[in-house]
Amino acid sequence: MGKPIRIGMVGGGLGHGGFMGRVHRMAQRLDGEYVLAAGCFSSSAERSRETGDALGLDPGRIYADYASMAREEATRDDGIEAVSIVTPNHLHVPVARVFVEAGIHVVCEKPMATTLADALALRDLAKRHGVAVMLTHNYSGYPAVRRARELVAQGALGELRIIQVDYSQDWLTEAGNEGWRGDPDQAGPAGALGDIGTHAYQLATYVAGQSATTLSADLHTFVPHRRLDDFAQALLRFDGGARGRLSVSQVSPGNNNRLQLTVYGTKAGLHFDQEAPDALMFSPLGEPAQRLDRGGPGPAGGADRQAGRIPAGHPEGYLEAFAQLYRDFAAARRGDTAAAAMLPDATTGCEGLAFIEAMLASHRAAGRWTQLPSYSD
Amino acid sequence: MGKPIRIGMVGGGLGHGGFMGRVHRMAQRLDGEYVLAAGCFSSSAERSRETGDALGLDPGRIYADYASMAREEATRDDGIEAVSIVTPNHLHVPVARVFVEAGIHVVCEKPMATTLADALALRDLAKRHGVAVMLTHNYSGYPAVRRARELVAQGALGELRIIQVDYSQDWLTEAGNEGWRGDPDQAGPAGALGDIGTHAYQLATYVAGQSATTLSADLHTFVPHRRLDDFAQALLRFDGGARGRLSVSQVSPGNNNRLQLTVYGTKAGLHFDQEAPDALMFSPLGEPAQRLDRGGPGPAGGADRQAGRIPAGHPEGYLEAFAQLYRDFAAARRGDTAAAAMLPDATTGCEGLAFIEAMLASHRAAGRWTQLPSYSD
Amino acid sequence: MGKPIRIGMVGGGLGHGGFMGRVHRMAQRLDGEYVLAAGCFSSSAERSRETGDALGLDPGRIYADYASMAREEATRDDGIEAVSIVTPNHLHVPVARVFVEAGIHVVCEKPMATTLADALALRDLAKRHGVAVMLTHNYSGYPAVRRARELVAQGALGELRIIQVDYSQDWLTEAGNEGWRGDPDQAGPAGALGDIGTHAYQLATYVAGQSATTLSADLHTFVPHRRLDDFAQALLRFDGGARGRLSVSQVSPGNNNRLQLTVYGTKAGLHFDQEAPDALMFSPLGEPAQRLDRGGPGPAGGADRQAGRIPAGHPEGYLEAFAQLYRDFAAARRGDTAAAAMLPDATTGCEGLAFIEAMLASHRAAGRWTQLPSYSD
Amino acid sequence: MGKPIRIGMVGGGLGHGGFMGRVHRMAQRLDGEYVLAAGCFSSSAERSRETGDALGLDPGRIYADYASMAREEATRDDGIEAVSIVTPNHLHVPVARVFVEAGIHVVCEKPMATTLADALALRDLAKRHGVAVMLTHNYSGYPAVRRARELVAQGALGELRIIQVDYSQDWLTEAGNEGWRGDPDQAGPAGALGDIGTHAYQLATYVAGQSATTLSADLHTFVPHRRLDDFAQALLRFDGGARGRLSVSQVSPGNNNRLQLTVYGTKAGLHFDQEAPDALMFSPLGEPAQRLDRGGPGPAGGADRQAGRIPAGHPEGYLEAFAQLYRDFAAARRGDTAAAAMLPDATTGCEGLAFIEAMLASHRAAGRWTQLPSYSD
Repeated sequence: MGKPIRIGMVGGGLGHGGFMGRVHRMAQRLDGEYVLAAGCFSSSAERSRETGDALGLDPGRIYADYASMAREEATRDDGIEAVSIVTPNHLHVPVARVFVEAGIHVVCEKPMATTLADALALRDLAKRHGVAVMLTHNYSGYPAVRRARELVAQGALGELRIIQVDYSQDWLTEAGNEGWRGDPDQAGPAGALGDIGTHAYQLATYVAGQSATTLSADLHTFVPHRRLDDFAQALLRFDGGARGRLSVSQVSPGNNNRLQLTVYGTKAGLHFDQEAPDALMFSPLGEPAQRLDRGGPGPAGGADRQAGRIPAGHPEGYLEAFAQLYRDFAAARRGDTAAAAMLPDATTGCEGLAFIEAMLASHRAAGRWTQLPSYSD
Repeated sequence: MGKPIRIGMVGGGLGHGGFMGRVHRMAQRLDGEYVLAAGCFSSSAERSRETGDALGLDPGRIYADYASMAREEATRDDGIEAVSIVTPNHLHVPVARVFVEAGIHVVCEKPMATTLADALALRDLAKRHGVAVMLTHNYSGYPAVRRARELVAQGALGELRIIQVDYSQDWLTEAGNEGWRGDPDQAGPAGALGDIGTHAYQLATYVAGQSATTLSADLHTFVPHRRLDDFAQALLRFDGGARGRLSVSQVSPGNNNRLQLTVYGTKAGLHFDQEAPDALMFSPLGEPAQRLDRGGPGPAGGADRQAGRIPAGHPEGYLEAFAQLYRDFAAARRGDTAAAAMLPDATTGCEGLAFIEAMLASHRAAGRWTQLPSYSD
Repeated sequence: MGKPIRIGMVGGGLGHGGFMGRVHRMAQRLDGEYVLAAGCFSSSAERSRETGDALGLDPGRIYADYASMAREEATRDDGIEAVSIVTPNHLHVPVARVFVEAGIHVVCEKPMATTLADALALRDLAKRHGVAVMLTHNYSGYPAVRRARELVAQGALGELRIIQVDYSQDWLTEAGNEGWRGDPDQAGPAGALGDIGTHAYQLATYVAGQSATTLSADLHTFVPHRRLDDFAQALLRFDGGARGRLSVSQVSPGNNNRLQLTVYGTKAGLHFDQEAPDALMFSPLGEPAQRLDRGGPGPAGGADRQAGRIPAGHPEGYLEAFAQLYRDFAAARRGDTAAAAMLPDATTGCEGLAFIEAMLASHRAAGRWTQLPSYSD
Repeated sequence: MGKPIRIGMVGGGLGHGGFMGRVHRMAQRLDGEYVLAAGCFSSSAERSRETGDALGLDPGRIYADYASMAREEATRDDGIEAVSIVTPNHLHVPVARVFVEAGIHVVCEKPMATTLADALALRDLAKRHGVAVMLTHNYSGYPAVRRARELVAQGALGELRIIQVDYSQDWLTEAGNEGWRGDPDQAGPAGALGDIGTHAYQLATYVAGQSATTLSADLHTFVPHRRLDDFAQALLRFDGGARGRLSVSQVSPGNNNRLQLTVYGTKAGLHFDQEAPDALMFSPLGEPAQRLDRGGPGPAGGADRQAGRIPAGHPEGYLEAFAQLYRDFAAARRGDTAAAAMLPDATTGCEGLAFIEAMLASHRAAGRWTQLPSYSD
């Protein structure tokens, strides 16, 4: 543990709906590697002030607008080194841009942008300024997910054939809770697809080490008057030869936050369930199915142990996984390239937007198999 | 329990691969409602003889060919009243036809035929002869499945929105075990799709009370030189407004026989897992998720208890569910229309072939959304 | 499969409470190795007649009293070769005695007697007459239990240290359902202890291959006015050096029939749950925990496959396990000593009574560690 | 969130075996309610220094002995307000004493002392000095445990009858890892019993709201040459009329940290499993079993939600539960009596020692039912 990184936050004000801001702050604190030093927590100056006060910030570093914050922090000796962007989607790029231009590293919520063009432009900008961008696809921080990825990379599954990812929630089963997520002007053109579909797709590609080349999509809005999709499904083909599917829904009663990934290869299968994240089921062909506990024995325990904090049997959860991204981001700032390689970055953000746009395009074309647009460096 | 029904069997000889014949015989015996009285157990007269002998049949009623069997049994005073057809797929229709024409009721393995045209013709023939046809979509015999169906029918889920069914096995992960299932001349044009896809589709429609109107399919054969699909997936739209997906695979390591159905409506969700068939998970929106034990308390316990034999906590399984179809079939012969209404029949068989043909057609048309052909009465 | 064994039944009349009679008959039928040929199904001649008629028995072989049945069947050329005793506990010995004396093999419900003295006397009598006695400790018929036993016997667990068995039900949480089980004159001196405690103890010793030498017990009757214990627990020491505990309760809401066994040795642990009986959890020290599916890969699959009927993934349950005892009993009659060695017998019955009497004695002595009385041959 | 509390730590140095120190520090950081300001991290001055440096402490507040630390911190204006004691057991009381006498609040690992007499004396001392003592029985911090406690308190289970608690680990299955826990001079007279038995007993009494009055115990050391018990079991009777059992083992292969509590009353049962801590199983008699998700619907959600941080479906774990104790302790310092009432305190510590001493006494008396010594205020 080195000297804590000074970090700022845009968005994430206290109050109802401020769940993600709190999550980011807990994740920053857990490992003692960050100190929250500045913030512009709301588009309302008053609410920003209240939040900053409650968090014990120096009043002079609680900002009413993010552009001032970027400008002023960049000039302070003790200015923030990184910023977390926890705003509605449509602000990700505008906010990120000013911090990137100020040479401040960016941690950004997903989806990175509301269009692929914007995402690509942000990626280029960050590259030009030598600024790091981490996208908080937090499920990538789970030790079991890291282990799954390592199992695949080491060939324990053989050649991958089938990739299946499902993300089901129920909090939008009825109308009324959408908030900004229900407003295309703030959320962008994708509803459930953008909110959780990008997580599902990222998880699948992160573990499988393959990206989709083409997909056939079906989107739907089940709840009357809702303006964005609350359900999306697709058949997928991957560049490594695998086939599979993706389903997301926010209208599935009985599912709090059920993200599940199943991958089958020629030699084994694996299964991850985000609601029971401390173990991975691993099924080598012709052998008994095994439960790979976090930090426990079995193949590919390296990445697993590296991303955990406490021994098996002492459950870790969502906040620890989230904190792992922050921990890796801190390590990356100190030059740890292995940690950096674990992180979703601006290219991941572009991949997410490419996925969204392909889904929307395929759906509009009555499910025609549609190629994902290019987002390569 | 009335007087046992005299039943015969075509196919199902002892020896390797004779698994399904043994299952049918155990299912017939469990409730004491059938007596196996005649059989033509193999296309090999010698193997048929050996099997019949081992089963203790009257030597005069062990047949070398099924046509003779139908003819002779039809003329005996103590001739069989029903026949079970447990042959490779391509023989279902030819065998069924001669027994139907002899006025003998038919229990037939799925898929009922290798083409929809054959299926429709058989259905018509049976109707003309007043002969009952039961298709052994055995998963319909599970008490939990019956309860799921009743929950949906009673409106406990509200309006259905999402129907997801997955059937994964691993026994064809490598080449070599296909037997007749790998030979299009015996299995018909569909591999995994015909073998387990029809089960998956039937389970979904049986519970949901909705049929697919249109689908977008993707089939694949992962194992080199295999002649039929070992993987199939589809997006579906149902006539009641629901959307969903179906996936089947016989190349998924770690899955013995994993058939799972999930249905979501406006008011609740339910989940059935064939490998843990003695309970149903039921999740009313805004209430805790409930485990509905077979025969246990909770909504829709009627169908559930009617289809079970022993109290909750004394696990029932695959054979009991299979036996339930036979028990209902016997009850239906005695005029029990409620039991008859529970049974997959010749129309179900046509629906299965319509599904197969739409899947094949959509796949050939690069996944185009394809309507299921008509199989209405 | 040889010629079916002609079997009779005493007790097990249709009507409420006739659950166990039906179970025995289904278990006899499943594998086609028995034909029910005679019966005295009730102490009421009329109810015996009704049951026999409903089962389609020859009217001349439906008896009003079991002594006549034993006498007459023993003289018929086609007389029964075995009898199943499914009566209240206090009749097990009187009924068994007359059939043993008539040279007819006995299948008997547990506990074998209401006193150890009676049990020992019956065992001796059977031995003198060369008659086989099988006690239907049906949980011994589960493939997973057979596999657990084989794992222990093969040393896969190393030296056993800890044996824990719990059997919880909830059907007596409130007063009113006891039937004859609540009446000491019919049930004997033990309530839950006799009814399910004997099952729990037998399961533990069957798998572990160790018997208790001494125990410290605590019994209780929670429901007012109930005349026999509805809860019993004990600490145990075993002759192979293991220690452990046993708990039984019929007043534990949420438990249908939850019998669980956990055994730990120096090298591994195993866990069996009767409500999910198709797999065994096996945990070798320093390796991932494994799920050993019935008939699936992993250590000690021999006994497992031998006791199963259908492939893994096609759930077997309580009736199949029960049928397995009958199948082994039939095989034993044909001289199969391996099958015979799998079966709970008259010595097992004596061990059960020794356990009951030690529990009662320890409880009366305020929990003093009490030796199990001798039941050796 | 008020101004962070300045806290110090005794013990908890970095390096192997420093697991609990890291846990306490993460728990302190998670909610931002503490700042670590001083420490004496090891009996080795050098190791204490290294740890303090790594944690970024002011060098002047890294101490070589705890007595100096208490003395000096008590005189600073910015001195610590509380101290966490994370040392081997034999030091808990000596360390706590000097901080109590310095008027500094104490957070202490369990067991609070190595004898009941010491525990009682510490409790009295703290009372006289008006200093708060929190014992880190961290499982009390789980939202599901809080909810279980509230369910019992609200009468949702009716009158309690049966309380069963089991705590199994496997890390001492073989000799060699004991560290100070294997040394009676540091650990006290109880091995597994003191280390995890106190947790198990505290969890049971915390949820049930009943204490044991009398118990019958059996302790054992399975691993040769080990000096303290690695296995303990007992039958228990509680002051509210319930009966039950407790088992602890550190030689049970396949168990990382399996702490399970089951409670049955006249109206319902509940089950908590520490390895799946985000839900509680609740089984009202005559209704389906329910899964009560953390923060989810169902009875007694108040305490549950109060103790959680993020919505259901976003798993919380061990660190969050641990942090909850710290969060409640901070709230208690600000006068929140409801939070204070949730916390294990010095009386809990006395109860734990009373339990240990009764277990040891009963075991020495060959399992005689033994009363727990008094620890009342």
